[in-house]
Amino acid sequence: MDIEIRAATAADWPQIHEFFADIVADGETYAYPDDLTSDEAAALWMQDHVVVAVDGVTVLGSAKMGPNRPGRGSHVGTASFMVSPAARGRGVGRLLGEYCVTWHREQGFAAIQFNAVVETNTAAMALWTSLGFRVIGTVPGAFRSRRHGYVGLCVMHLPLS
Amino acid sequence: MDIEIRAATAADWPQIHEFFADIVADGETYAYPDDLTSDEAAALWMQDHVVVAVDGVTVLGSAKMGPNRPGRGSHVGTASFMVSPAARGRGVGRLLGEYCVTWHREQGFAAIQFNAVVETNTAAMALWTSLGFRVIGTVPGAFRSRRHGYVGLCVMHLPLS
Repeated sequence: MDIEIRAATAADWPQIHEFFADIVADGETYAYPDDLTSDEAAALWMQDHVVVAVDGVTVLGSAKMGPNRPGRGSHVGTASFMVSPAARGRGVGRLLGEYCVTWHREQGFAAIQFNAVVETNTAAMALWTSLGFRVIGTVPGAFRSRRHGYVGLCVMHLPLS
Repeated sequence: MDIEIRAATAADWPQIHEFFADIVADGETYAYPDDLTSDEAAALWMQDHVVVAVDGVTVLGSAKMGPNRPGRGSHVGTASFMVSPAARGRGVGRLLGEYCVTWHREQGFAAIQFNAVVETNTAAMALWTSLGFRVIGTVPGAFRSRRHGYVGLCVMHLPLS
């Protein structure tokens, strides 16, 4: 396994943006605005703590993480993940997910909450479940999947203390 | 009943800010950042569709509403509500809530989702339930209540179609 996870830098963005744009356009996993420019997408992704999974100079995936809410909700973290379609099947999502759980523990968060896991995203649902997350509830029809139509968005949760 | 609901204007902000600041400082209902300036609070509240409940020139409460997510989640709306502590017990919250449901119907939203209703906020829980919302799930301990400690945040949902 020669995949490394490290903090992202501005120099990583062009590679992140390539799969970010593909994944959003694919229409199965993220409710980002349509037709984002690269700068607009960077403003949404490159915030809080952002990491990349790299194989040498190639960015295979990225995750962003930080408090889910400010103020009286800031003890619960959240995260978003994207893996380059070209890198699927190499365990990149699991590495990023495990990193995310460790990072939140080290930072002293009480829990991690995912606000909107698309219920038809079976890879993500299985990965988060295997890491100990459970579905708190599913908002019916809250996501317009390109292939499946209206599907649910799951709120998932992992207590850390 | 001489309470009117109308679109908010910038001139309403000083009155809104007075109860916004009181309600956030009270620490029981909203996870806004601490120590917001008036301008910062205005930037968070005065966006999307914002209304005020007024009795003549006095602002009794305010609500903001719009899509809960962009892109493939934009068919589900959301809203936030604040009622001036000085105006409690006059049905202002219910008027704003009924307005919110009607507005979302007229705009063609498929549903309304509240992301974070504090479970110990019994007035809000009772009001939304009476308007037909149901709890999709409760994220345990996700809110640090000033008086109650760690309490749950409820995801509530009302289908409109």
